[in-house]
Amino acid sequence: MQKFEHGGQIYNADGTAGDWLDFSANINPLGVSEKVRAAIIENIDGVKNYPDPNATELKAAISQRYKVSAENLVLVNGAAEFFYLYLNVTRPRKILIPVPSFSEYERAARAINAEIEYIFTRAEENFQLNLAQDFSADLIILGRPNNPTGNLISIDNLKKISNAKILLDESFIDFLEVESARKLVSEKITVVQSLTKIFAIPGLRLGFAVVEKKLAAKLNAAKDVWNVNFLAQKAGVAALSDEKFFVDTRNWLKSEQKFFIERLKKIPNLEFFEPTANFVLLKFETPEFAKSVLKKLRLKKILLRNCENFVGLDGRFLRCAIRSREENLKLFDALENI
Amino acid sequence: MQKFEHGGQIYNADGTAGDWLDFSANINPLGVSEKVRAAIIENIDGVKNYPDPNATELKAAISQRYKVSAENLVLVNGAAEFFYLYLNVTRPRKILIPVPSFSEYERAARAINAEIEYIFTRAEENFQLNLAQDFSADLIILGRPNNPTGNLISIDNLKKISNAKILLDESFIDFLEVESARKLVSEKITVVQSLTKIFAIPGLRLGFAVVEKKLAAKLNAAKDVWNVNFLAQKAGVAALSDEKFFVDTRNWLKSEQKFFIERLKKIPNLEFFEPTANFVLLKFETPEFAKSVLKKLRLKKILLRNCENFVGLDGRFLRCAIRSREENLKLFDALENI
Repeated sequence: MQKFEHGGQIYNADGTAGDWLDFSANINPLGVSEKVRAAIIENIDGVKNYPDPNATELKAAISQRYKVSAENLVLVNGAAEFFYLYLNVTRPRKILIPVPSFSEYERAARAINAEIEYIFTRAEENFQLNLAQDFSADLIILGRPNNPTGNLISIDNLKKISNAKILLDESFIDFLEVESARKLVSEKITVVQSLTKIFAIPGLRLGFAVVEKKLAAKLNAAKDVWNVNFLAQKAGVAALSDEKFFVDTRNWLKSEQKFFIERLKKIPNLEFFEPTANFVLLKFETPEFAKSVLKKLRLKKILLRNCENFVGLDGRFLRCAIRSREENLKLFDALENI
Repeated sequence: MQKFEHGGQIYNADGTAGDWLDFSANINPLGVSEKVRAAIIENIDGVKNYPDPNATELKAAISQRYKVSAENLVLVNGAAEFFYLYLNVTRPRKILIPVPSFSEYERAARAINAEIEYIFTRAEENFQLNLAQDFSADLIILGRPNNPTGNLISIDNLKKISNAKILLDESFIDFLEVESARKLVSEKITVVQSLTKIFAIPGLRLGFAVVEKKLAAKLNAAKDVWNVNFLAQKAGVAALSDEKFFVDTRNWLKSEQKFFIERLKKIPNLEFFEPTANFVLLKFETPEFAKSVLKKLRLKKILLRNCENFVGLDGRFLRCAIRSREENLKLFDALENI
């Protein structure tokens, strides 16, 4: 497994997609909504034109839904793009990264040759981030909730961080019923959010960041104006106004988290970490056993995320998305047979 | 007009698309081919998955068509993305930009705070780039053919440039029957090419660069692996294998360039610069007159590119795409009535 490899590896060696039941990527199992699908189809002929360089409709939809000013917005071709853009422009020398966490934080930090310092969080402490420890850096990058641990830093604890700027990744926040940290955005705090996970459009790419006004202008000047493609803009506009989809998603997750936890508890010799979002971190007794689980699930065309390449984890850990009841049942059937 | 504003501004203030006959963006008027359209429609449901991080199919298609090794490829979300990526990673201190040229070269150079030196090319000299002049810099960025002048630097003259690395933008090369400079790619020469103009998919975004192997690895490590969206990958694969579309495009252009030149010659007090690709630079006697032409054409729902924000040009210059015979006739009807 390569250092920066991710979940969602559904592609065969020739690049065609395999027929997997994919629990290795954390995508909303409600899938592409009918409204989003219709928006894509309706706008296919529009790909012959450049995307709107001002992304007027999309910015208006994001502003309205998330109560942020358009001046504070930086639209991106998926949240991952933002890490590279932000670091290229702000050029922090020393970056703190609590681990385990989404590996693009480190990959982007390496791309600008920043000094990287890990803050190890421990399974025995439920991966709680200990803010009492002494640290100083130019930047700290935090997932809220954190992927793959599910740890959710509180707004109060965020406010206590005084010795570094904060780049906060709230890519899973819309799955949860907790308050976003967007209202804290300042010269110190920047918040980025993926829209591809919640709307199940990772193939289209879409995200946004809420950024202090002056920095937002600098970031917007450091990327081309067409980075969010036309279909992603149209899909985003359709999705953001669909309140029912958000409600349905949260209702599904509340119900399935409960179901998942109940079923996980019944599996012997398996530890798991209380999920906050649409994924659960699992811990098996040995890496060999976890590997054999992965292998046996693959034979049933089920993918889980091997966590051996997360700094701070090892081969004992697997990450598992929470999917629809029907799909989850297939997973537990398979797991219980192992 | 803003400094870095481009053509293709077909959007109304509310972000909806207006009904323009758009000669201000240089897009293939053969449009989205049936094969590309079918590939997009067929793959819509695939947007629920991440794009293939290796882009195996697309890389194979590009490698095959353009005879380049996959190790030398950097795939981008439109060629514009590449300028920012390349400059972020290579960080040249001093950049030479012959002008007038595509303004993203300068915008990307400013984003890394590079020192910028213009090489002015002159209308009276047909915008020929004078390589005899003394210059030294870390990088020179060249369009081949150059937008908006159409000037085409020869392979021999390229080879003579010894005092700077070269970033060569061949975004219009597939419209022409000339040899690409891809085979010159080395530590010194990098070539980037848009695929959105030739395939008429600027709304989907797609491009690639051919880069010396070690630098390619660095560039690929400095962007996220999903930057080319899934539908653009599929559209690209479908388009690249469609040899007939390339042939049809070149045949259309040869015929329409000739027609365009003949008609332009008949218009009094209008100078134009011999086109090499699918656009022509026009020069009117005064900025006021050019402005009135733009205004009158707008009333007929026709857009041309005002060139007043190109460094080295002024309000006398307009850029005009070459489109289908039917559309070109509409343009000349309108022009001759002015």
